[in-house]
Amino acid sequence: MNIKGKHFRTIWLAADGWSVEVIDQTKLPHRFETANLKSVEDAARAIKTMQVRGAPLIGVTAAYGLCMALRADPSDISLESEIRFLAEQRPTAVNLRWALDEMRKAVQNLPYEGRVSAAYARAARMADDDVEVCRRIGEHGLAIIKDIAARKRPGERVNVLTHCNAGWIACVDWGTATAPIYMAHDAGIPVHVWVDETRPRNQGAALTAYELGSHGVPHTIIVDNAGGHLMQHGKVDLCIVGTDRVTSNGDVANKIGTYLKALAAKDNNVPFYVALPHTTIDWTMDDGMAIEIEERGQDEVLKMPGRLPDGSVVTVEIAAPGSPAGNPAFDVTPARLVTGLITERGVAPSTKAGLEKLYPERA
Amino acid sequence: MNIKGKHFRTIWLAADGWSVEVIDQTKLPHRFETANLKSVEDAARAIKTMQVRGAPLIGVTAAYGLCMALRADPSDISLESEIRFLAEQRPTAVNLRWALDEMRKAVQNLPYEGRVSAAYARAARMADDDVEVCRRIGEHGLAIIKDIAARKRPGERVNVLTHCNAGWIACVDWGTATAPIYMAHDAGIPVHVWVDETRPRNQGAALTAYELGSHGVPHTIIVDNAGGHLMQHGKVDLCIVGTDRVTSNGDVANKIGTYLKALAAKDNNVPFYVALPHTTIDWTMDDGMAIEIEERGQDEVLKMPGRLPDGSVVTVEIAAPGSPAGNPAFDVTPARLVTGLITERGVAPSTKAGLEKLYPERA
Repeated sequence: MNIKGKHFRTIWLAADGWSVEVIDQTKLPHRFETANLKSVEDAARAIKTMQVRGAPLIGVTAAYGLCMALRADPSDISLESEIRFLAEQRPTAVNLRWALDEMRKAVQNLPYEGRVSAAYARAARMADDDVEVCRRIGEHGLAIIKDIAARKRPGERVNVLTHCNAGWIACVDWGTATAPIYMAHDAGIPVHVWVDETRPRNQGAALTAYELGSHGVPHTIIVDNAGGHLMQHGKVDLCIVGTDRVTSNGDVANKIGTYLKALAAKDNNVPFYVALPHTTIDWTMDDGMAIEIEERGQDEVLKMPGRLPDGSVVTVEIAAPGSPAGNPAFDVTPARLVTGLITERGVAPSTKAGLEKLYPERA
Repeated sequence: MNIKGKHFRTIWLAADGWSVEVIDQTKLPHRFETANLKSVEDAARAIKTMQVRGAPLIGVTAAYGLCMALRADPSDISLESEIRFLAEQRPTAVNLRWALDEMRKAVQNLPYEGRVSAAYARAARMADDDVEVCRRIGEHGLAIIKDIAARKRPGERVNVLTHCNAGWIACVDWGTATAPIYMAHDAGIPVHVWVDETRPRNQGAALTAYELGSHGVPHTIIVDNAGGHLMQHGKVDLCIVGTDRVTSNGDVANKIGTYLKALAAKDNNVPFYVALPHTTIDWTMDDGMAIEIEERGQDEVLKMPGRLPDGSVVTVEIAAPGSPAGNPAFDVTPARLVTGLITERGVAPSTKAGLEKLYPERA
């Protein structure tokens, strides 16, 4: 999508034809900077330090990291050891392992001299595929937004609420939850987004607001507490969120607080959609409440980074000194609260039958 | 309640017998300091700058402010002009006007030479009455906590979730929502409190955590997003919150986000109680959705005060530069989601009949 009128992906091949440029997300929203990754070590560090984040983007970054490793040493020993090295940078990221497996498949049966070019080709296709999957999610979601817009008076805005960041900077382009929003905006539909701040890491206020603002999409940051009130007063037409894992029955694991918004949507007859690529569906689980929820460090709750008036970035302690904090990172929204799952193949009801109809090969 | 083992109220007569000491809440949670108010101007400034906050405490502070004004000039002209002056410091605070009306009644028919002593006596009684009302709320709420504790295994803790600060530092002592918690703790019941951070002003993380910690009550700060997840997993036994206004049918206006917690409580069969003195009931309204909700400034969302490592307190910008924020300050929890209203006269169902049974003089 656009930043100040210029189109960007989150990752692209540099002008030298082999190193990789990424948007350095550790600097956002305070500064826009790109980082040039020149080695597998650079790529690993970018993943570990969250210069790149979001499952699809982590996968593509690792793929290009492996390309650079094979440039230095295309041997089988190198291939396996670098895959291991990259995979351990974010141990819980399913997508990272999937991407590295795909890279192995692409090169392992080739002679050494053909591996580098094949690896770069596979990584480029992985990035393009991610863009295409998000674009299709966007088209299916756009149809939903168009339906709502058609019931409005001319010029009346469509209000979308989203939680956390399932945006283009978590992917390569478009994003998942944001793809329908960008498409609606680009199509001239007057869309406005309520951006949940998304404590504790503030991905909404920091990242979603940043990317929507950079592309020119009207939006308003709200604290996570505010969405229910807005829905009670008719100020939200639909919710669209992303997800970290959807079980085969349609339960949705996503950033902590998603469940509360889904409850409020249900209580106020506001449609609640979840956008996802098929790779997010966990066909091995049929009960979201069985998903183990990561408990993260308390400093994410007790401390906050921000800009001082002079532009420097500092971290401050915000809570009562000595009080401990709990920090569950995700929650599970039961399928009964979800209006539909927007995938690259279309919109499925949040049921086992609904998902199997879209993905008959898994039924 | 106690701070480091010493009992405090939020406001008390100084050793000189006429000026007033308050805990300076603008310094909390970063520093504990008291302020000495020596004039009506000092009292007004304390109210306006939120050195004192919370409806009951604002009322008592204004009452003492008027005492000091009458010390300087006990005339009728002074009485009326100082009441006007004090009332305008927080224009929306119903309790402030009520307190000043009470003060007027206490002195207006007295000769000038009797007004100062009568005023101090009335202000002292107002403070004592507030303590007594909160103590009774605490006793009625304690019975609920005892019931839950009785169904637990010995030593198993009772987990209470609260939102915002309806604590003793918003009152004179005990607090409303916190009174049952302090009583349970002091009675040896192993109570533990989940403290909602309460964005945007963080009254939970800053004030509720501070006062619970100071009194020694076990507690854990959580982001506002986390409560639903905790309830899904059986980690919350009951919710108790305060309120800014309860309509005659039992709808509850309280800090933004209260509604979301009430929805989650209902969805998980967790009892959801609201603690209030009868002065918070608005007998003139029978539909909470008609309550006008204050929209506050966006800087409360976009900026955050906190401590630097050197102990200095600064304010940082936390969101994407240029993105606007919305900031509705309260929401309304429909009566159907409220298990009971804990008042100084007992626990009422959240219905018109329930409230009228406790307050037959209003039926």
